[in-house]
Amino acid sequence: MDRQEISKVVEQVVKEVKSSSMTLSMAKELISGIEEKAGQMGMSVVIAVVDKGARPVAVHCMDGAYIASYDIALNKAFTSAGLKMSTAELSGLSGPGGPLYGIQHTNGGKIVIFGGGEPLLINGSVAGALGVSGGTLEEDTYLAAYGKELWNAARHNADEQR
Amino acid sequence: MDRQEISKVVEQVVKEVKSSSMTLSMAKELISGIEEKAGQMGMSVVIAVVDKGARPVAVHCMDGAYIASYDIALNKAFTSAGLKMSTAELSGLSGPGGPLYGIQHTNGGKIVIFGGGEPLLINGSVAGALGVSGGTLEEDTYLAAYGKELWNAARHNADEQR
Amino acid sequence: MDRQEISKVVEQVVKEVKSSSMTLSMAKELISGIEEKAGQMGMSVVIAVVDKGARPVAVHCMDGAYIASYDIALNKAFTSAGLKMSTAELSGLSGPGGPLYGIQHTNGGKIVIFGGGEPLLINGSVAGALGVSGGTLEEDTYLAAYGKELWNAARHNADEQR
Amino acid sequence: MDRQEISKVVEQVVKEVKSSSMTLSMAKELISGIEEKAGQMGMSVVIAVVDKGARPVAVHCMDGAYIASYDIALNKAFTSAGLKMSTAELSGLSGPGGPLYGIQHTNGGKIVIFGGGEPLLINGSVAGALGVSGGTLEEDTYLAAYGKELWNAARHNADEQR
Repeated sequence: MDRQEISKVVEQVVKEVKSSSMTLSMAKELISGIEEKAGQMGMSVVIAVVDKGARPVAVHCMDGAYIASYDIALNKAFTSAGLKMSTAELSGLSGPGGPLYGIQHTNGGKIVIFGGGEPLLINGSVAGALGVSGGTLEEDTYLAAYGKELWNAARHNADEQR
Repeated sequence: MDRQEISKVVEQVVKEVKSSSMTLSMAKELISGIEEKAGQMGMSVVIAVVDKGARPVAVHCMDGAYIASYDIALNKAFTSAGLKMSTAELSGLSGPGGPLYGIQHTNGGKIVIFGGGEPLLINGSVAGALGVSGGTLEEDTYLAAYGKELWNAARHNADEQR
Repeated sequence: MDRQEISKVVEQVVKEVKSSSMTLSMAKELISGIEEKAGQMGMSVVIAVVDKGARPVAVHCMDGAYIASYDIALNKAFTSAGLKMSTAELSGLSGPGGPLYGIQHTNGGKIVIFGGGEPLLINGSVAGALGVSGGTLEEDTYLAAYGKELWNAARHNADEQR
Repeated sequence: MDRQEISKVVEQVVKEVKSSSMTLSMAKELISGIEEKAGQMGMSVVIAVVDKGARPVAVHCMDGAYIASYDIALNKAFTSAGLKMSTAELSGLSGPGGPLYGIQHTNGGKIVIFGGGEPLLINGSVAGALGVSGGTLEEDTYLAAYGKELWNAARHNADEQR
C-alpha cells in the first residue's frame, strides 16, 4: 500500500465516520418529508429530531399544531434516542404489569410511553431519533414510522452515491 | 358600494377579527358566572382562564378554596388549550390501556387527565380554555361544562349584537 | 356584663377576625381599582393578589400585557407577603454589598427584588400582598403604591361602617 | 362596488389578518437566512423562533453548536416575546444598580439578560421573537439584529406583493 492508497483509505474512513452523525441538513430533509405527508393527511404536527446524545437538532411546529405537542414530540425523540427503542415498543413494556412499568417517572418527565418516537440508525448504530406529536396515537405512530422509512431510504441512497 | 359603505365593511371585519381573541373582559364575565353557580351549589373553587397561547388571562380563588386547586385549575386550562380537548375527554384516552396512557408525564406536570378543563371556541377556533378545581370530579366537570355553555351563549349574543 | 352584652362582644370579635382575612371580594375590588388607573395611564399590566399564606387569590392580565408579567406580578406578591415588605424596600437591601444580597436565589425563583410588590395590612397585620408588573419600574412601583392606598382607604371605610 | 369587488376586499382583509400571525413558513425562511449568514461567518449557532404567545415555532441547531445554546436561544426568544423587548435592551436595565436588576430570576429561568433575542413585529405589533446563541455576545447580538432586518425586509416585501 503506497502513500496515495493509504491517503485514499483515510479519506474514505473520515467520510464514513462523518456521515454516521446526525446533521442539521439530514434533520431538515427528514422533517420536510414528514411535514409534506402530514399536510397531505390534513394534519398539523410537531416534528422533532435529536442526535445520538439525545440533544435537539431541529424542531418544527406546523401551523395550528397543539401547544402541548412541542414537549411531547421532543420527549418522544429523547425517549427513542435515550433508550434506542421506538416509543410504540416501549408502550408495550411499560403498562401496568409490564417489565418497565413506572419508567415514565425515571427521567424527570422526559420519557414518553406511547407511539410517535423512532430511533434513527446509520450503519446499524443509533445516530439520533425522531418524535412526532399532534394527531391521534395511530397517526403519530404512522408518521414516525413513515419518517423512519424516509430516513432509511435517504441513508441507502447516500451509500449508493458514495 | 361607496367609500363610506366600504369603510363600514372593513370596520366590521376588524371587529370580527378582534373579537376572536380572548380578552380580560370576556374572562372576567365567564369567571363571574361560574363563581355565582358555584356559590349557589355551596362550593368554593378556583377558576382559571387562559388564551389560545395557553397563557393565563385571569384566575380567581373563591374564599376557602383548596390551595392545591390553584395549580390544578390553571393546568386544566393549559391542558385544554394545549391539546384543544376537554380534560374529561383526555381522561378517557389516558388511563391504563388507553392510547395516551402516560401523557400526564410529558409536559413538566402541566397535563391534567381528569375533568374540569374545557377549550373555549370563537367561530370554531380555540381562543383559549377554562379550568375549574375545588369540588368532586363530577362537580368540577359540571362547572367547567356549565362555563363552556355560558361562554357559547355569550359569543352567540355578541354575534347577534353586531 | 350580662349574657346579651357578652354575645354582642363575641359577635364583634368574630366580625373583626373575619374582616382580617383577605377575601376574593376584597382582591377583586382592589384589582379593579388598579386596572382602572392603569387604563387611564394607557398601560397594560398584570395584577396579582395573594393572601397571608402568600397563596394566590386573584390574578388579572390586562389585554396586551407582557406574557412574562404573569410570573413577575405573582412573584412580587409572593415576595411582599413572604417577607412582609415592599419589593421596592427589598430592592435597597439586596443589591451587591447590601445585607440581603443573594436573597433572590433563596426561594426557588419566587423572590423579586425590584419595585411593584406591596404587603396589604388589616389592623396592623399582613393580610396578604399585591404585585403589579407590565410597565417601567417607576410605573409598577407607582401602581402598587397606589393599590396599597386604595386598600387602606377601603379598610378604613369598612371600619367606619361597622 | 359590486359583489365581486366586495369579495375582493374581504379576501384582502383576511389575508392581512392571517399575515399578522407567525407561521412556520415565515420562521423557516428567517432561520435559513440567519443560518446562511452564520455559515459565512464560520459560526455554528442555535436559532429559535417563537410566536406571540412565546411558544416555539421552529428551532435549528447548526452542526457543532453548543448543547447549552438550545435552551439559551429558546429562552432569548421567550424573553423578547414575553417582554416585547430585545435582550440587548434588557441587558442595560438588569445589571447591578439597574431598575430591573434581578429580573433573570423571576420567570423560572426563562429570562435571558444578554444580547441575541429580538422581538419580531408585523404591522407594529409583536408577532413573535427570535433567539440566537452560539457565538460571542457580539456575534449573537449581531446575528439577532441581522435576523430582525431580514424579517422586516420580508414583511415589507410581503406588503408590496399584496
